[in-house]
Amino acid sequence: MTLDSTPSRQSRSDAPEVVVARLPQYVRILARLLQDGTDVVSSQQLGARLQVTPAQIRKDLSYFGRFGKQGRGYSVPHLLDRLKQILGLNSTWNVAVVGVGRLGRAILSYPGFTPDGFRLVAAFDVSPDVVGQEVAGLTVQPIEQLDDEVRDRQISIAIVAVPTEHTQEVVDRLVECGIRAVLNYAPITPQVKEGIRVRNIDPVLSLQSMTYYLSEDL
Amino acid sequence: MTLDSTPSRQSRSDAPEVVVARLPQYVRILARLLQDGTDVVSSQQLGARLQVTPAQIRKDLSYFGRFGKQGRGYSVPHLLDRLKQILGLNSTWNVAVVGVGRLGRAILSYPGFTPDGFRLVAAFDVSPDVVGQEVAGLTVQPIEQLDDEVRDRQISIAIVAVPTEHTQEVVDRLVECGIRAVLNYAPITPQVKEGIRVRNIDPVLSLQSMTYYLSEDL
Repeated sequence: MTLDSTPSRQSRSDAPEVVVARLPQYVRILARLLQDGTDVVSSQQLGARLQVTPAQIRKDLSYFGRFGKQGRGYSVPHLLDRLKQILGLNSTWNVAVVGVGRLGRAILSYPGFTPDGFRLVAAFDVSPDVVGQEVAGLTVQPIEQLDDEVRDRQISIAIVAVPTEHTQEVVDRLVECGIRAVLNYAPITPQVKEGIRVRNIDPVLSLQSMTYYLSEDL
Repeated sequence: MTLDSTPSRQSRSDAPEVVVARLPQYVRILARLLQDGTDVVSSQQLGARLQVTPAQIRKDLSYFGRFGKQGRGYSVPHLLDRLKQILGLNSTWNVAVVGVGRLGRAILSYPGFTPDGFRLVAAFDVSPDVVGQEVAGLTVQPIEQLDDEVRDRQISIAIVAVPTEHTQEVVDRLVECGIRAVLNYAPITPQVKEGIRVRNIDPVLSLQSMTYYLSEDL
């Protein structure tokens, strides 16, 4: 380990979850800036993109180390690289998809995961009609194979796209198998033990961010 | 219209979309505070909940009017009510669900929409096997009924849960029928004309907010 990674290690556990959840947006913006050939960015410019105050930018980043020099702005490639490192996005993550219905198929065919370092390496379903099918280059496996695959392929993330009534039981099983992060598409919030991360697709927040524009001309 | 609503009207078009998108989170926090019996909240306290600086809170809210008095904090019930009003959450919104596969069914059965003012009033599908079925109290209608229903039931929001390859065509059709806001579950970004709002479920950002915790003990 290089000295350079020390600050993030130290503060890792101190960073509030909502701040961590904002970092991927920083990464997106920085990647776009880099693509546009921008080399240095100030907290003002970064804030303008994200519509947050420069102080908020500096506060968010301060949890993870010292970036940039007073009055000189941030080096875009350096900050991007550091944030990706902090978020673990410099590694590739093996992901399992559980539930190969309509949505599961769509997820498996989505081209957006791989460029961002998430490799869908296994797909599972309970239905005998679906098991054995080839979907997006993967052969759908019976759920009984979960333990072995999670271990053999070093899968730590699962995307769960099963019917609501089975979601909790599937998540329980995934956690037993060693999965530590779950992205759940069903409109419920599965319960998990401490140390396991779950993100739920939250449709209400999305809807509420649109009604603003609908009421505009009422 | 009362004078009280003037500030939001004035600034409505000036508020950046990312700021608008944050307001539903303010509403959630404020509703929780109110439930806990909290009557007044400072921008410091609000910021602590959302992990944003007090200045950021004040900046965000400043787009929508003047709330609270210097040094006195915000009245929780007043700010909550105003933000709900600004976001159009004091009205009930009629919502159509298009696509009644696994996911569509889960969405139709989700109990979280109604308490937040989103009433799922119509469900559509193309499959003759599905049309006519009763799901969560609604009879699934053929997609041909869309125009009439959108008009008759004053539906302005649609949740789209159709296979990826049909998403764009369904969204186009919805917009033609007068739908002005779309929540899309398929992992693509449908194109729409100006003035139409689309929110996409973004799985990559959610995954990226979890890998931080996974790399922790690598």
